[in-house]
This record gives sequence, C-alpha cells and structure tokens, in this order.
Amino acid sequence: MPINASGPSCTVVTVTRCVFCEIVAGDRPADMVLDEQGFVAFLDIRPVFPGHCLLVPRAHIATLEDLPDDLDGPLAAFTKRLAAAIRIGTGAQGTFVAVNNTVSQSVPHLHVHVVPRTKGDGLRGFFWPRTGYDDEAHREAIRARISAALPAAR
Amino acid sequence: MPINASGPSCTVVTVTRCVFCEIVAGDRPADMVLDEQGFVAFLDIRPVFPGHCLLVPRAHIATLEDLPDDLDGPLAAFTKRLAAAIRIGTGAQGTFVAVNNTVSQSVPHLHVHVVPRTKGDGLRGFFWPRTGYDDEAHREAIRARISAALPAAR
Repeated sequence: MPINASGPSCTVVTVTRCVFCEIVAGDRPADMVLDEQGFVAFLDIRPVFPGHCLLVPRAHIATLEDLPDDLDGPLAAFTKRLAAAIRIGTGAQGTFVAVNNTVSQSVPHLHVHVVPRTKGDGLRGFFWPRTGYDDEAHREAIRARISAALPAAR
Repeated sequence: MPINASGPSCTVVTVTRCVFCEIVAGDRPADMVLDEQGFVAFLDIRPVFPGHCLLVPRAHIATLEDLPDDLDGPLAAFTKRLAAAIRIGTGAQGTFVAVNNTVSQSVPHLHVHVVPRTKGDGLRGFFWPRTGYDDEAHREAIRARISAALPAAR
C-alpha cells in the first residue's frame, strides 16, 4: 500500500531559477571579475584553463540572437575589455571567445566564454575535422540560402 | 655549377597581402553572404559544417582587442544577423560563434566564425576536457589578477 494512499493529496511545485539569474541577483556565489551596468563576468566553475570567464547580461536573454539591439555595443565592448584583462591577468598570449547558441548551451542564458590561450596549450581540436562541400553547386546553394535569409534575420 | 652562377644577380621581393584584405578588396574570390558598411561575411573554405561563415571587418584589424570602439555595436549586430541567417538558411537548431585571438588565429585579421549547429552533429569536444583550480586560493588569485587588469584593459 503506498504510504500516502490514505493521506491528503499533495502537489509539489518545483520552481527552478536560472543559475546565471541567481548569480546576477546575488543569490548564488560566483567569483566575480566584472560587475557593470548591463553585464557581469565571473570565473567559469569548470574552466578550460584557469582564468576562463563567462560574460553574462544581467537580463535573462536566452541567446545572442535575442540580445536587444541597445546591448550590441556593450556586449562587444565588455568582451574586448574582458579578453584584454584575462590575457594580461593570466599572462596568456591570446584568448578564445565563444558563444554556444541553443545547441551545446548548458545554461539557457546568453554567456560569452572568454578563455586564455597560450601556444601549445593543447586546445586545438575544436575546429577539426573540417569538412567541405560536395561540389561548387552545393556550396553556392548553401551560400544563396544564407544570403536569402539575411533580410528576414534581425 | 648553379644555373645562374654567371648570370646577373636577382633580388626577389615577395609581398604577401592579408587574404581577408584581398577578399575585401575584391582581389580574391569568396562566397559572399553579407557585404555591408564596415563588414563582409563569406563561407569559410574549410567549413566545420556547411554554412560556416566568417564575419570580417573591412579594415585590417588584427584581433578583437584591436577593434575600434565605434565598430563594437556593428560587430555584435552583424554577428546576430549572420547567426540568424545561418540558422534559418541551413535549417540548423542553433549556432556556434567563436573568435580566436592571436593563438590558433590562422589569419591575423579579426574574423568571427559562425557555425550552424544541430543536436548530435558531433561538435562537442572543444570544451573538453575541463580542468579546475588547485584550490580556493588558486581560484581567488586568478580572479584577483583578472579583476586588477580590468582598469588597464581598454
């Protein structure tokens, strides 16, 4: 007999908040490196390399495509500043900047990865293997489809 | 005996132009998808997946850190538009947006990779393996160094 078969019925409602919204609200600890109007940045808890940070808009914006136009400039400006600070602060030679939109996006709140890079650090595989196009007609068909979609793209 | 040993001496000067500057100037063919003020975008010749494009400023700007502030907004705006167009045009579920600065940067002219993504497409490895910090003190030291570098970072 189920243990609650004779008891009152009970509805459990689980409300899960976005972890990045929790960090922005100060309800979840994070190693903050930047706390500015519109954006925060903090260390990724599972860094590709030490110093790997995430730049996150304060507002819950799902993907880059959803970013309001008035945040375009600040997003790029803060990414530039963060890349420079990570390079200088970690003594790296360069940086890797990346955004996963929808696919491979672990938290559905826009976040820009900024990862310090040093020659020979072993991070080389992500862009390989490269593929190709079947032939010129295939390539042109793909190009034309993207071009045609641009006017509709915001 | 070398064949030119008795001939006139000859100095060969090789001038190598940036391949993206050549594309911008129209001196090198490319599969253009976007040709706007300040930026062009074209198919990567060795795509991770068909539809993989590069967004490139017309001016020869080496890395993201070197981008003039007045191009911050346009860079993000064109990246958003291109991501939407690639997603729509290729029927993808999402996109991957990435910039290599200095390290792993094959052409020293800023270029934003925009790659169509579909669940299960096999592109998952680049962010693995993740590492970590030795301990909290190590993590805090890295955080503090990046924070301290921010005011100096443009």
